[in-house]
Amino acid sequence: MNSSPLIDQLINAFRCLPGVGPKSGQRMTLHLLERNREGGKKLTKALAEAIDAVGNCAHCRTLTEEKVCRICASPSRNHHLCCVVESHADIFAIEQSGSFRGVYFVLMGHLSPIDGVGPEQLGIGQLLEKVQTDDFEEVIIACNPTVEGEATAYYIAEQLKSIDVVVSRIAHGVPVGGELEFVDGGTLSHAFTGRKVMSTT
Amino acid sequence: MNSSPLIDQLINAFRCLPGVGPKSGQRMTLHLLERNREGGKKLTKALAEAIDAVGNCAHCRTLTEEKVCRICASPSRNHHLCCVVESHADIFAIEQSGSFRGVYFVLMGHLSPIDGVGPEQLGIGQLLEKVQTDDFEEVIIACNPTVEGEATAYYIAEQLKSIDVVVSRIAHGVPVGGELEFVDGGTLSHAFTGRKVMSTT
Repeated sequence: MNSSPLIDQLINAFRCLPGVGPKSGQRMTLHLLERNREGGKKLTKALAEAIDAVGNCAHCRTLTEEKVCRICASPSRNHHLCCVVESHADIFAIEQSGSFRGVYFVLMGHLSPIDGVGPEQLGIGQLLEKVQTDDFEEVIIACNPTVEGEATAYYIAEQLKSIDVVVSRIAHGVPVGGELEFVDGGTLSHAFTGRKVMSTT
Repeated sequence: MNSSPLIDQLINAFRCLPGVGPKSGQRMTLHLLERNREGGKKLTKALAEAIDAVGNCAHCRTLTEEKVCRICASPSRNHHLCCVVESHADIFAIEQSGSFRGVYFVLMGHLSPIDGVGPEQLGIGQLLEKVQTDDFEEVIIACNPTVEGEATAYYIAEQLKSIDVVVSRIAHGVPVGGELEFVDGGTLSHAFTGRKVMSTT
């Protein structure tokens, strides 16, 4: 027997979050109600506002509350360079690394026929149109280095062949700071095939 | 550069939850916006309702949206037996075990002079009043088996001495299903002092 249906409802509602089960849901609920109602109110407001207002950028499909996202609208970005990523989280990661100053195109997933995700769902038509009309010099495909990501990358590269644009794929190899001992075979084999000459005799 | 201030705001708002940092906040935000807006809406509603309506039970201080919580109001509970716990989460755990059919009193914390938590903050006055006016046969103190919990338990027992009621403390000992090898010394010593006779010659 629980003391309150509203508390049960909130515990259940928290389970829509990734990685939150009944126990964490309970912990979150009690934490907010016992100790941080102010934070809870802010969260309610932020959630309502974001769900209501955030849509997709007309240019790159990223999440934004504006018609065109800040990256696409920024004059300080290189608009001749396009990076294709699987999800918004990838943009966060790439932006944080500061390694890319162009614009993005978000597929929101990868090809997965078994789940009914084909080229239309990923907006590949929109990407081709964008590459044809915009003045891109290079399209960098930064799909995840997974089987599905690779398949998606190859599919996109194939589609872009007919268009006059350089298509590249981010490099595979051993991660910086890692130890060879713990690197898997696939990555090592990529690291050997993709090796770079350091000096010649 | 991020594409949306509302997304940043939501990521920050999620950090009010226990165990949620910037990375999990980002994961939760993108999950809801990309894949589960319906769940997000439900969460918003549940949060707003709970924060707005949930207060404390007039009898036992537990969280409830009613004046008196369901446990205190239930005629099927034993109203002569009171269990004193530190937090609402403890009620969840005890109710789930099905080992107690009486009513509760929630301290909402433990004595901690360094944090300014004294007997008033824990409602110990209210507890004494309740024990004096209600017809309790036994008060079971189920504070956590921590140093602060023990101190709180002893303080309450001391206060209840003048009242005609049995005061008991939940048993300490080795947890069921555990292995002795991994049980700490304090627990083992409690388990030996609290040993029970199985048969006499």
